[in-house]
Amino acid sequence: MSDADTPLQAVKDRVLAFARERDWEQFHSPKNLSMAIAAEAAELMEHFLWQGLEASRSDVQTDQIRAKVEEELADVLIYAIEFANVAGLDISEIIDKKMQRNAEKYPVAKAKGRSVKYTEL
Amino acid sequence: MSDADTPLQAVKDRVLAFARERDWEQFHSPKNLSMAIAAEAAELMEHFLWQGLEASRSDVQTDQIRAKVEEELADVLIYAIEFANVAGLDISEIIDKKMQRNAEKYPVAKAKGRSVKYTEL
Amino acid sequence: MSDADTPLQAVKDRVLAFARERDWEQFHSPKNLSMAIAAEAAELMEHFLWQGLEASRSDVQTDQIRAKVEEELADVLIYAIEFANVAGLDISEIIDKKMQRNAEKYPVAKAKGRSVKYTEL
Amino acid sequence: MSDADTPLQAVKDRVLAFARERDWEQFHSPKNLSMAIAAEAAELMEHFLWQGLEASRSDVQTDQIRAKVEEELADVLIYAIEFANVAGLDISEIIDKKMQRNAEKYPVAKAKGRSVKYTEL
Repeated sequence: MSDADTPLQAVKDRVLAFARERDWEQFHSPKNLSMAIAAEAAELMEHFLWQGLEASRSDVQTDQIRAKVEEELADVLIYAIEFANVAGLDISEIIDKKMQRNAEKYPVAKAKGRSVKYTEL
Repeated sequence: MSDADTPLQAVKDRVLAFARERDWEQFHSPKNLSMAIAAEAAELMEHFLWQGLEASRSDVQTDQIRAKVEEELADVLIYAIEFANVAGLDISEIIDKKMQRNAEKYPVAKAKGRSVKYTEL
Repeated sequence: MSDADTPLQAVKDRVLAFARERDWEQFHSPKNLSMAIAAEAAELMEHFLWQGLEASRSDVQTDQIRAKVEEELADVLIYAIEFANVAGLDISEIIDKKMQRNAEKYPVAKAKGRSVKYTEL
Repeated sequence: MSDADTPLQAVKDRVLAFARERDWEQFHSPKNLSMAIAAEAAELMEHFLWQGLEASRSDVQTDQIRAKVEEELADVLIYAIEFANVAGLDISEIIDKKMQRNAEKYPVAKAKGRSVKYTEL
């Protein structure tokens, strides 16, 4: 099992089955799931709270941080995927749409090497 | 293109290519990306801020909310996927590990229909 | 010591002195402090993650939740106050300005009993 | 009006009066308010998303960023203060308690100039 041979649908199905088996769909309203994603995202962020930007690149490769970061990122993804399940969204489709929009907002010629918002390009 | 036939790696590659083309990898430290995930998660959450839990299930199906929610969820996923790119993580593997751990923490017999933390099961 | 006889400045001074004594101002850039506020806000939110809205009103009064919630809210406030210290902001002034703006956006006649955004009033 | 002569209670009263006038206490459950704090904290954070740590110190002093940051920080504080109103918490007391606990966790001798968590001091 690896990203090369795992379709998005397989992960969606697994996450949904886990919730169904536990009769947890009753708790998985979009409102609650959006809170869960935000809460897990904050836990991921906490590992880098007082760190320098470049230091965060090397720290994420140390065994101690890496194991925790893997768990927090997995939590973010699991809840985001469950949100897609609950709302009936096709992940590949919404990412595709968003990246097309981003490509229009941030054309390579203007955005290259710049981190400003598209409104200021 | 749909979740059934899109491998995770395809989405990872697309997100990475977008950043590389714009020379944005310099901004994509784990620290910055963790902030970006959290910021987008909060934007998703804002759509449900004052709403009832059940109301959020139907609202997410209305055209007006749905379009915005699709964009915000896509943003969360794009940054989470880019985090996996930058940190060199296999998404299917970290989700698999986390769900195995969750299954141990929340055995069906104990967790069914209950929303309490595993420490209180 | 109580809110009735504690000026905002007294709390600001105390928070600043704590950071100075530990030589922590070097870590307290606006960027880092904004992350810290967001991280602590998420910890506060986690206590209510799967709960009903009305249940959260009574739960916050139980001894067990109350003690934790007091700590998390204090953390949010401490970092927000330190942000004001670092950025040189007068808290009473920025709250005053914001509430005047809110009063214009949400006139009582239109906003009474309604939770929609001002753009939809 | 300034932080030197504004007691915390005055700000609490003002925030509560604003909500009461609009009959908004029905929406201000602890769960919803915790989400609102987190959402506003994320908006504050967004201003510094791709910025360097030191750059965020100077940027916060520019007119353009300063005005926005004032508004976002005010929002965080307003919702945190309203949370204290709703939960019946004395802000000066919970901050005092938390700072005493922090002083024990982070004694000056050990914590000076270090940003690690107390568990690693």
